[in-house]
Amino acid sequence: MAQKREPIEYADASPEVRAVYDDIMATRKIDWVNNFWKVLAHDPPTLRRIWSNIKDVMGPGALDPLVKEMIYVAVSASNGCRYCIASHGAAARHKGMTEAQYSEMLAIVGLANETNRLVTALDVAVDDRFR
Amino acid sequence: MAQKREPIEYADASPEVRAVYDDIMATRKIDWVNNFWKVLAHDPPTLRRIWSNIKDVMGPGALDPLVKEMIYVAVSASNGCRYCIASHGAAARHKGMTEAQYSEMLAIVGLANETNRLVTALDVAVDDRFR
Amino acid sequence: MAQKREPIEYADASPEVRAVYDDIMATRKIDWVNNFWKVLAHDPPTLRRIWSNIKDVMGPGALDPLVKEMIYVAVSASNGCRYCIASHGAAARHKGMTEAQYSEMLAIVGLANETNRLVTALDVAVDDRFR
Amino acid sequence: MAQKREPIEYADASPEVRAVYDDIMATRKIDWVNNFWKVLAHDPPTLRRIWSNIKDVMGPGALDPLVKEMIYVAVSASNGCRYCIASHGAAARHKGMTEAQYSEMLAIVGLANETNRLVTALDVAVDDRFR
Amino acid sequence: MAQKREPIEYADASPEVRAVYDDIMATRKIDWVNNFWKVLAHDPPTLRRIWSNIKDVMGPGALDPLVKEMIYVAVSASNGCRYCIASHGAAARHKGMTEAQYSEMLAIVGLANETNRLVTALDVAVDDRFR
Amino acid sequence: MAQKREPIEYADASPEVRAVYDDIMATRKIDWVNNFWKVLAHDPPTLRRIWSNIKDVMGPGALDPLVKEMIYVAVSASNGCRYCIASHGAAARHKGMTEAQYSEMLAIVGLANETNRLVTALDVAVDDRFR
Repeated sequence: MAQKREPIEYADASPEVRAVYDDIMATRKIDWVNNFWKVLAHDPPTLRRIWSNIKDVMGPGALDPLVKEMIYVAVSASNGCRYCIASHGAAARHKGMTEAQYSEMLAIVGLANETNRLVTALDVAVDDRFR
Repeated sequence: MAQKREPIEYADASPEVRAVYDDIMATRKIDWVNNFWKVLAHDPPTLRRIWSNIKDVMGPGALDPLVKEMIYVAVSASNGCRYCIASHGAAARHKGMTEAQYSEMLAIVGLANETNRLVTALDVAVDDRFR
Repeated sequence: MAQKREPIEYADASPEVRAVYDDIMATRKIDWVNNFWKVLAHDPPTLRRIWSNIKDVMGPGALDPLVKEMIYVAVSASNGCRYCIASHGAAARHKGMTEAQYSEMLAIVGLANETNRLVTALDVAVDDRFR
Repeated sequence: MAQKREPIEYADASPEVRAVYDDIMATRKIDWVNNFWKVLAHDPPTLRRIWSNIKDVMGPGALDPLVKEMIYVAVSASNGCRYCIASHGAAARHKGMTEAQYSEMLAIVGLANETNRLVTALDVAVDDRFR
Repeated sequence: MAQKREPIEYADASPEVRAVYDDIMATRKIDWVNNFWKVLAHDPPTLRRIWSNIKDVMGPGALDPLVKEMIYVAVSASNGCRYCIASHGAAARHKGMTEAQYSEMLAIVGLANETNRLVTALDVAVDDRFR
Repeated sequence: MAQKREPIEYADASPEVRAVYDDIMATRKIDWVNNFWKVLAHDPPTLRRIWSNIKDVMGPGALDPLVKEMIYVAVSASNGCRYCIASHGAAARHKGMTEAQYSEMLAIVGLANETNRLVTALDVAVDDRFR
């Protein structure tokens, strides 16, 4: 009983799925679609919904596009999602992230995970000045 | 049997602990110390070690200071550490984070947590182009 | 220094371990035992205890058997345990889960992980009506 | 420097926010809006986006509505989001969840968290039959 | 619609629940039962099952009883379960844990959470010597 | 665009990195360095900082060295970091951990993860006696 969903290539995709693939490529100005979308394509409504969310959240806004990608990578590194680190790490590099910036971001991710546990275990009360 | 460690105020601190408090205040150009350090003060070597790490990692580097604080908040929000969100959120606001930037950062944190699970559950293979 | 515990096959198992394997196969009406149990078999008391727990918790009760498997998969997907997603996903499919149901469950897992972070970061107070 | 976002009541909400509140109440056939939405209302685009996602994902589909709520609660219990457990637990009870069903669901959540760690630590290989 | 389960006191407990309470008190040589069990008592089969697991796992074995409690606290601190830190922390102190040992354990928990993220994000390959 | 950082061997390392490698080998009385350090070596300040932390926290203190390694493994098992389980598991075995002790530790890790979720979901109040 096969469980693993294989990526659906453009050539094999339904018009509904192709429309999302086309929008991904147009929005990102690239000529290919990465595996995440090709696997989500088995469930077209989720494919459309997640792409629409990514477009909204990761599109132009109050934060610099590179900063947004780095926050995405930071959370993915904290959660241990290798694919997400690889794909959003590539996007961040494409937007100009240097290796020194990547190292510095990982150092923050590591340290935050350390202090988060100390704070929780010691049940530190929020200072009045922070409220 | 009391378990909870109460914050140690400056007036009650040992010279060793006061030296760290002094350095925190001098480095941050503020005249008070927040509860995290006052609770860590029960264990002076850890107080010194964590402060030294924070100073190294969060000090000047390849990333903008505000971006660094926002990455810290993003990881803390993902991990659910309320104190850490409050304290580093205050630091980020102090460094100029607007409410619109805060909202946008939280939206990324939420979305990354969603897609991290989809990717993991669907066991998406890393694209060759990302390697 | 070998660390990884290899699966213990039925032919190589002690009578104590075989008794658990036999009960697993009889309870599930199948003629094989999956790797989880064969690896746990290095520690017979834990093998017995975990199997007894699974039998109690996943056996007949107030919830439909398929719903129970899907809850198991949902938690495993949220935690990122690939083996658990594969094994309980197979069990759920065996009990009738369709691909559309699987997709819908994953969508809920993803969305819950997103809103969980927003709620925590925003420190939303529980409404009186929910108490 | 106030950080905590207070709930925005209907009377104080902008037309854009009221439109979402109205849709929440109409969709759920209730006459009030819970705190999650009132806090998200500080960021109208996120309010609209998350409500649209919830409506899509939690609306009619391949799974029974009660099962969907229980999966939501299960993930929230696993992640430790108290507000989410309270709000989606209330929704599940409203849709007919009994206390026995709730207990059984929690037992699965607990057990899955136990076995997820054993599987990961023991690095169990996925059986060929599960692929 | 009340959701929160209140602790069930001995005087109000069924004979089935009292039997577990009695065994907890006899095993631990104490004259009271902590809230975890009193809340689980709403679901007697789970109460019995979890107590039986705790008795098996936390009873005499290959590890020192204090070490076992400290491992329990370490995992609970890493997961952010305040009640679990408080209750197993009390048990560890009762078995002789000093404040210096507690501090040292928390330092390990924090550091492991830091390095776990660095290792995962950097996708470090397991050395042949560790296999 | 290569993303993955390859281990930097001693022969290819800068004097700054070699100094840390030398200290690791001298402190541990071994003649090789494991991959974690060789990958961190791309970022020498982080390499130095993390090694200094590990040396401080895992060096002689209030807890037995083997107990310290087991706590490290327990947290890594709970977090699902395979490399960390392998490397600190090897260290623990080197310091005398038996297979029975390893099994018992994993049983505690699993059970703590189970009860942590039950406690959180049931929102159990901390007993006065534990405060």
